Amino acid sequence: MPKTSVFQDVCWYLSGYADGEGSFCVSFSPRSKLKTKLEVRPSFSVSQNSDRSEVLELFQKTLDCGTIRPDRSDKTLKFEVRSLGEINEKVIPFFEKYPLKSSKYKDFLLFSNICRKIAGKPSIREIINLAVKMNTSGKRKYNTQKLLSILR
Amino acid sequence: MPKTSVFQDVCWYLSGYADGEGSFCVSFSPRSKLKTKLEVRPSFSVSQNSDRSEVLELFQKTLDCGTIRPDRSDKTLKFEVRSLGEINEKVIPFFEKYPLKSSKYKDFLLFSNICRKIAGKPSIREIINLAVKMNTSGKRKYNTQKLLSILR
Repeated sequence: MPKTSVFQDVCWYLSGYADGEGSFCVSFSPRSKLKTKLEVRPSFSVSQNSDRSEVLELFQKTLDCGTIRPDRSDKTLKFEVRSLGEINEKVIPFFEKYPLKSSKYKDFLLFSNICRKIAGKPSIREIINLAVKMNTSGKRKYNTQKLLSILR
Repeated sequence: MPKTSVFQDVCWYLSGYADGEGSFCVSFSPRSKLKTKLEVRPSFSVSQNSDRSEVLELFQKTLDCGTIRPDRSDKTLKFEVRSLGEINEKVIPFFEKYPLKSSKYKDFLLFSNICRKIAGKPSIREIINLAVKMNTSGKRKYNTQKLLSILR
């Protein structure tokens, strides 16, 4: 089997794994010293029990970016990419080539839309309005109203 | 792209998904009327939030077996194959062709060993001794001692 075919197999495997266990997220942190008052923090992450770290290492190797570290909240390990440059240049092109097959794909589309917009320095309101449409089944630390009130 | 290549991509994607979200399990239920006193129930299952059922349908279609139904324990949907014949003829050959890449692979090897042995009607003690080595991070309703005591 040619090497490229094996690489493709790994990429599709990682896409499936990420569809189940991965998370595309855009979070906000109040920063009074920033002109925008809010720091926007996009990330792609995959968590796993620490006795099963092989797949996280495979993500790091295949995407050629990101860090693996213990998650503070529980006893898992987390692979995470937080650099906007690496998200735009490595993570997003990967999932465009090997797309998710569940409705999590919609979250990915919003995520990629936001990350590419951030590079063009859009208004913070525009980012908030897109981000709140993501991962609607999860919990947000700050809801839309709270985020907009920080801007005022 | 030829059709076979797309099919391969889907299979590797499902392997990755199963590595994260799938479960190979051999459970036991006391059955006083059975000669062996214990019913052995192997299963392969994948659970998912009900708003993301696409992947479960993809498992059912690709493996050409199994059922999708609401899980009693929570608000998820569960794809499950419990027929020993279908496990041996469809599920195991699939994961031999598209193997898991995490240490869950070890659980799969034990699972396939057990399921193929069951067809040959081995001793129930042999099955118990193999099954308790699986999924050691999870909880078992009956431990080895309890299972062996039921046999007496």
